[in-house]
Amino acid sequence: MTLFSELQSLLGADHVLAGADAAPYLTDWRRRYHGTALAVVRPGSTEAVADVVRACLRHGAPLVPQGGNTGLCGGATPDDSGRAVVLSTARLNRVRAVDTDNDTITVEAGCVLQAVQEAAEAAGRLFPLSLAAEGSCTIGGNLATNAGGTQVLRYGNARDLTLGLEVVTAEGEIWHGLRGLRKDNTGYDLRDLYVGSEGTLGIITAATLKLYPRPVATCTALLTLASVADAVELLSRARAGFGASLTGFELMAGDCLQGVVKLFPQQRLPFEGESARSPWFALLELSDSESEAHARERFEAVLSAAIEDGLATDAAIAANLAQSQALWHLRESIPLAEAELGKAVKHDVSIPISAIAGFVGKTNALLQAEFPHVRNVIFGHLGDGNLHYNVARAPGQTEEELLALQPRIYDVVHASVMAHEGSISAEHGVGQLKRDELPRYKSGVELALMKRIKQALDPHGVFNPGKVLQT
Amino acid sequence: MTLFSELQSLLGADHVLAGADAAPYLTDWRRRYHGTALAVVRPGSTEAVADVVRACLRHGAPLVPQGGNTGLCGGATPDDSGRAVVLSTARLNRVRAVDTDNDTITVEAGCVLQAVQEAAEAAGRLFPLSLAAEGSCTIGGNLATNAGGTQVLRYGNARDLTLGLEVVTAEGEIWHGLRGLRKDNTGYDLRDLYVGSEGTLGIITAATLKLYPRPVATCTALLTLASVADAVELLSRARAGFGASLTGFELMAGDCLQGVVKLFPQQRLPFEGESARSPWFALLELSDSESEAHARERFEAVLSAAIEDGLATDAAIAANLAQSQALWHLRESIPLAEAELGKAVKHDVSIPISAIAGFVGKTNALLQAEFPHVRNVIFGHLGDGNLHYNVARAPGQTEEELLALQPRIYDVVHASVMAHEGSISAEHGVGQLKRDELPRYKSGVELALMKRIKQALDPHGVFNPGKVLQT
Repeated sequence: MTLFSELQSLLGADHVLAGADAAPYLTDWRRRYHGTALAVVRPGSTEAVADVVRACLRHGAPLVPQGGNTGLCGGATPDDSGRAVVLSTARLNRVRAVDTDNDTITVEAGCVLQAVQEAAEAAGRLFPLSLAAEGSCTIGGNLATNAGGTQVLRYGNARDLTLGLEVVTAEGEIWHGLRGLRKDNTGYDLRDLYVGSEGTLGIITAATLKLYPRPVATCTALLTLASVADAVELLSRARAGFGASLTGFELMAGDCLQGVVKLFPQQRLPFEGESARSPWFALLELSDSESEAHARERFEAVLSAAIEDGLATDAAIAANLAQSQALWHLRESIPLAEAELGKAVKHDVSIPISAIAGFVGKTNALLQAEFPHVRNVIFGHLGDGNLHYNVARAPGQTEEELLALQPRIYDVVHASVMAHEGSISAEHGVGQLKRDELPRYKSGVELALMKRIKQALDPHGVFNPGKVLQT
Repeated sequence: MTLFSELQSLLGADHVLAGADAAPYLTDWRRRYHGTALAVVRPGSTEAVADVVRACLRHGAPLVPQGGNTGLCGGATPDDSGRAVVLSTARLNRVRAVDTDNDTITVEAGCVLQAVQEAAEAAGRLFPLSLAAEGSCTIGGNLATNAGGTQVLRYGNARDLTLGLEVVTAEGEIWHGLRGLRKDNTGYDLRDLYVGSEGTLGIITAATLKLYPRPVATCTALLTLASVADAVELLSRARAGFGASLTGFELMAGDCLQGVVKLFPQQRLPFEGESARSPWFALLELSDSESEAHARERFEAVLSAAIEDGLATDAAIAANLAQSQALWHLRESIPLAEAELGKAVKHDVSIPISAIAGFVGKTNALLQAEFPHVRNVIFGHLGDGNLHYNVARAPGQTEEELLALQPRIYDVVHASVMAHEGSISAEHGVGQLKRDELPRYKSGVELALMKRIKQALDPHGVFNPGKVLQT
């Protein structure tokens, strides 16, 4: 029997797609990566996933797991050999259990992140993972890529939110590791190894995740700052003053927000004059477990002190939920405003927070020296040391001219990242995009260890070949 | 050249111990495990550790890493073949760097935990890992065993506090992974794999750890409770009311504390009459980032509501630091009071918090049915679902009679743990103690994955053979 027929008999013909039906699964949402496949399958249970894995193993066909297909590194797009089977987790979308006494939720991999957030909210709890694609990305994809987002400062990455996993191994066996335990020291940490492995070691089919109390009140403010160094100092103050109540600290270069309000006139900066022309902005969020009044008093006390001490030059505190949403909307509109400048050369880097000011100053200078007049589009999650340090074309430069420089721009920025002891992929992963860069920025010892683990857990190379590691 | 001579020439004769000098390293501090060794070595640098590993590899000698030798599962004690080299990290005890802007500290494996806490304090920061052995255990041992302790509820286990590692691999290579990054998605999570692997995959020689702001004020209270179910409900209230400020929630059976004050008359329960005879006590700790007054007001509000709603029957709030320390001292004296009852059969288990009340009731009944009149000594970190569920001899029973029942008691308790979806080792690890139990309580799939990882990272079986996994 051909693999295609075998898959049809295992899953039913309706759940084995080819031709036009398969097409949406063969390119990423930004249409940067394109592949072909023997079939796209949509198994409806963990057992069916295991069946598919064993069938692929028998036929020597590569298997590419795919969640919401919102990744930024091509990790869920097959190659162009036409041999791969793409496994969509779309039908694995049940919330299996919510346990409020244990503060856990158990969900299947294909659950959309927003659905997980909503299930938590319905139980009076918070599932804090939050990122731009939350309306379409799946929790399985979030775990496979160890997703970050805007709440990492307080709650950690996807890995930190995970207590247990159910995984189909490369032999098509099922590891039932859905534990809801805060402490478990009975052997090697398989859980954290599968999280972030981008579908190259196993297929996560379900997870038990941590829930938190919902904040009683939230305060948001936009501050203007003279420099990145001041932002780092302000972050240190905010951490000391707010403790674990500090749930967001976003840094944005002035021209990012100035570009947003220019492109979207219905959006407004809450500042006039000098403050509106500030070189840097910071968006701070405090989540309080007591009361609106307490949150506001505390927020204002720490921010006032920061302004008095000259760390911030001005501040606009949201007076209500609508104003708070408007501030976050400014932040979230940056990628759209950036697109107006034409395709940019993008970086998703992290740097020790103490080195960020130096990194930004140094890297800006290196870029201007080598590529005069290119524009920086710098924003990110300062609280996590994570910057989206992007580079847009110089005035008069065409998009094509800039993109032709992309490899050289990568070189300059990533070399600077390494010189500052940072990471060339903070939250987006490796996928295809950075696979061939990895050997330049990771030690041979670390790469060899990674290859041994790949060989140990996927000895036949079935799972997502060509992602993360070179084959 | 013999291995012994080779080690002497690598490290200098002073740092290669045998005979009486070696003896303290060949038994654990409780003197439960005894072994022999070819030599005990004390390398003074990461490079020297790598030299020792390569020498052992060439000679086919097993290598047993050892920190403060305070483990409870025999993980740092060699077997009795006399072939092993014990590698003490005692001389790797430098604090390499403190970075307050990045909130990180980089320390060598042999640093005593308390020294790490003190270095953090000197920099105005908190390193929150805290456990009974902190005056003598080392951070390397804490990481090798993924230590827990009393602050896990808020700050997580040792693994959660770790950002980067330096590790000597089983080939004697050095992985320089001392990253101080909150986000890094460039490949497999080697860090979390080495943490908790009990020296069987590599030797952790240094780590970059997270620091936190120091709390401004701390409140402590001892509460009396009618049942474990009430304690679970109280925990839920405390999590909602205090958010991340809840830093401790310890549960203790009444006879634990009543035993403490009987044995140590200078210690007093802060209750009289009925309350002093309570079947359960809970010790709560709140850490506040604002002020003493704010902490106290908040603490009292939540605890008053809990008493009004009948979740707690009485409460004693510490009025000052001395009273707070006295309450914690009661908790910390339980193991000593327990020792008065004779050697007990000890368990270090975790259970989903929602199942803990059922677990305690059911397991108590099972034990009484099979071993009439044995006494339960139950205390632990309820906030993490972690109970030290110990069993002491029945009146009239000798220590020997009880210990003869140990395998059967283990069976009853661990079977009940599994029936409640818990773990048979919450925070102490596996070592030798639970190695042979693991195959009974872990799936074949999981054990096979663990063995593949051991084979991949330590193909010659040099590192700590006979620990965690059967050889």
